[in-house]
Amino acid sequence: MPKAAHVTVIGAGSAQFSMGMVKDLCLTDGLAGSQITFMDIDEERLDMICKLGTRYAQQLGSSLTFDKTTDRAAALRDADFVINTAYVLGHMVEADMRQLAGDKYGYYHSGGQFGRYHQLRLMLDVAHDMEKICPDAWLIQVGNPVFDGCTLMTRETSIKVCGLCHGHYGYLEIASTIGLEPDQVVWQAPGLNHNIWLTHFLYQGRDAYPLIDEWIATKAEEYWRTHVAQRTHDAQMSRGAVHQYHLYGLFPIGDTVRRGGWWYHTDINTKKRWYGEPWGGPDTHLARPFFVSDLEKRITEMTRLANDSKADLVAFAGKEKTREQIVPIMDGLINNHQGLFQVNVPNHGAIDGLPPNLVVEVPAIVNQKGIQPLHVGSLPPKIMYAHILPDWLETERELLAFKTGDRSMLLWNVLDQHQTKSYDQAVAILDELMELDEVKQVEDWEKMKRIADHYKYPAAFRGYDGSKK
Amino acid sequence: MPKAAHVTVIGAGSAQFSMGMVKDLCLTDGLAGSQITFMDIDEERLDMICKLGTRYAQQLGSSLTFDKTTDRAAALRDADFVINTAYVLGHMVEADMRQLAGDKYGYYHSGGQFGRYHQLRLMLDVAHDMEKICPDAWLIQVGNPVFDGCTLMTRETSIKVCGLCHGHYGYLEIASTIGLEPDQVVWQAPGLNHNIWLTHFLYQGRDAYPLIDEWIATKAEEYWRTHVAQRTHDAQMSRGAVHQYHLYGLFPIGDTVRRGGWWYHTDINTKKRWYGEPWGGPDTHLARPFFVSDLEKRITEMTRLANDSKADLVAFAGKEKTREQIVPIMDGLINNHQGLFQVNVPNHGAIDGLPPNLVVEVPAIVNQKGIQPLHVGSLPPKIMYAHILPDWLETERELLAFKTGDRSMLLWNVLDQHQTKSYDQAVAILDELMELDEVKQVEDWEKMKRIADHYKYPAAFRGYDGSKK
Repeated sequence: MPKAAHVTVIGAGSAQFSMGMVKDLCLTDGLAGSQITFMDIDEERLDMICKLGTRYAQQLGSSLTFDKTTDRAAALRDADFVINTAYVLGHMVEADMRQLAGDKYGYYHSGGQFGRYHQLRLMLDVAHDMEKICPDAWLIQVGNPVFDGCTLMTRETSIKVCGLCHGHYGYLEIASTIGLEPDQVVWQAPGLNHNIWLTHFLYQGRDAYPLIDEWIATKAEEYWRTHVAQRTHDAQMSRGAVHQYHLYGLFPIGDTVRRGGWWYHTDINTKKRWYGEPWGGPDTHLARPFFVSDLEKRITEMTRLANDSKADLVAFAGKEKTREQIVPIMDGLINNHQGLFQVNVPNHGAIDGLPPNLVVEVPAIVNQKGIQPLHVGSLPPKIMYAHILPDWLETERELLAFKTGDRSMLLWNVLDQHQTKSYDQAVAILDELMELDEVKQVEDWEKMKRIADHYKYPAAFRGYDGSKK
Repeated sequence: MPKAAHVTVIGAGSAQFSMGMVKDLCLTDGLAGSQITFMDIDEERLDMICKLGTRYAQQLGSSLTFDKTTDRAAALRDADFVINTAYVLGHMVEADMRQLAGDKYGYYHSGGQFGRYHQLRLMLDVAHDMEKICPDAWLIQVGNPVFDGCTLMTRETSIKVCGLCHGHYGYLEIASTIGLEPDQVVWQAPGLNHNIWLTHFLYQGRDAYPLIDEWIATKAEEYWRTHVAQRTHDAQMSRGAVHQYHLYGLFPIGDTVRRGGWWYHTDINTKKRWYGEPWGGPDTHLARPFFVSDLEKRITEMTRLANDSKADLVAFAGKEKTREQIVPIMDGLINNHQGLFQVNVPNHGAIDGLPPNLVVEVPAIVNQKGIQPLHVGSLPPKIMYAHILPDWLETERELLAFKTGDRSMLLWNVLDQHQTKSYDQAVAILDELMELDEVKQVEDWEKMKRIADHYKYPAAFRGYDGSKK
């Protein structure tokens, strides 16, 4: 007899995500009768998604039940699963920081990385609340930064945390571009979130890397010359991805491609060269506003549908399952419908050479016993020394700054950015960022400022710009 | 009854070093009757140091015996200690690389880092020869890079390796500058070579960090305003050193100060600001020629003395022991004259969180049982995440490129330099460095070039410079 679940969605106003989850729950027999609690601090968006979900489920004749609240503690009560999709202050603070960094300090499309403390604070708060209210529930973390946040929650709380991301579907884009049937592909791409590498790629039982090589040798130039991205994130087969493959020996998958090294990101022409037309990948001054306005358009459309009680929501949203892993994972954990998934969970030896309490992205078997990562063993040394381990260190510095309020490691991470030109520039931009209204709202930044007063930072080192002398 | 030793010096033409060792051997009773074999490929320099050593010992009435050879295998026969002080192609290739990087590509005083493969090749060759000829001898590595080279030899051979450096004496400069009696200071500064940090600094049994803080608060500005370095390496109390202390929480010691982060090194004015007048530290276009010409002057003087059979060598060299650790360590190992030293030896748990086969710089008790590192435990997280672990990764990438001949990690390390402006610049400088005459002499670079031909590096990625579009 299958069991229903109580699923709480934090940041449920991320409407497209929430709608996909409702669909999958409606279409998963094992989870019939489940209860969904939507929580968001934005009442309008909360109301909208609750209307949409309820009516979609009714239209399909599903037995799901819904409720909504702006009270996080109330939302967590009796939860079996807590899905955290919230993105604090969202793209606004990112954009403000980017503008400050760009206009005044000449960074090209940088700055988002200063905004992550809001997210870490929220994640930790949710996990701490869960310890008190629903200590046995699973926390499914969807909002970024998944790697940093899941590691933080794993270390600081006793909650079972699993981070999910879409990036690993990049293997499907490789398969379809080079002409392989996706369902005959066997693959593995472990690493850290946004830093995963295709260690295994088999087609009909044989190593399919030679097929990638053949495509590169015979078709890639034509593809790069003619391909025009339809989505900002369409970069899996870009010149930049192939270049990383050649440099590091394994194909980078999904969001991994967007990173790779500072030299892919110095300016818009460089980015277009590596990531293609028309946006130069998802992280440019062309792509980002498009991405955000596209999100806004979809919200507008969904709001219209929510307020039109006659709208056919099944016609709008369809009735095929999405490819999201969330609902199948819940079904696996609750109803023992076993499956293989790509998850972000504490390492504990899954990948050799990384700390046990660091969250890694690996394949896992999920069933009633729990989420059981595969031991994938070693990654090649070039991947470890050039990508996985440097990323680990960056996150440790960030978490250290977050935890201690020691501003020096914040400064260090700004200095570590290749576009930073001098010590004084780094100090100045950090000082200004601290003064942004959105930043001031966040308690931890205030704590950092207080500590900064005690921090030994003599006047001798201020106001000096080597480049001017 | 004390035992004599057979000491072989590779690269004995490093005359000042060799002369210091002769002095210490003459003045160490336990090692009376020892035999010194000088080996160098430069016959003139070899002849000079052999004459000087022999006559100095005679003048003191010492029972040391000397011989010399240009044949490395012959020099290693029956050795108890092999001191490797050689610096292949020396400052010439460094200067050529620096000039290329500077004149053509706009790097400020960079390029030395491309020259280390010569050194690694020689170190490994010496250690391999020792395995065949004198497998029980200790190898004392003095030529740089000590960290990388000792790690390489430890991993690739069965020879007992101990690296030595002068950097840790920086604690004495701190003591004398702030007015402490050196012999009442107890200290500890573990880490990696050229990356060591003052974890403990006690004066008359009390924590003396507050005395450093007091000096900084009341006297540092005056010191920085008026102090003029007498040696190029006089930077222990510089503004840059104090700044690193404030940023990372522990005082950097010795050569550590010269590094610290790219932002101390962008141009000569910045360097003077952080490292003082008149040279801006040891690594500037002003300091380096002075340092090299100073070395040359001393060689000229020593050559003159070697050829003047009436010269009073004791008057020239003195008869106090140097502060070098080499001879006392030999005396400890052979004659059980126990002492505490600062050595570079395989980690095996001496510092937490580093691989066992990585060579670390730690205090060690030396006696007949061997070189026994102290377990110093953990270093503070900021030091680990911002300095020790990134340095480890850089060395792993370098050793990987050296071992496999895979040029991609060479390229990566060039890209990782903050002064590199674009991907194409990195490719171009590496291509040109491969063509330098001095580089072509080295077998391993040739191997890398051969492998580069097979390396997947399509034309699509060449000849593109994002900065020009």
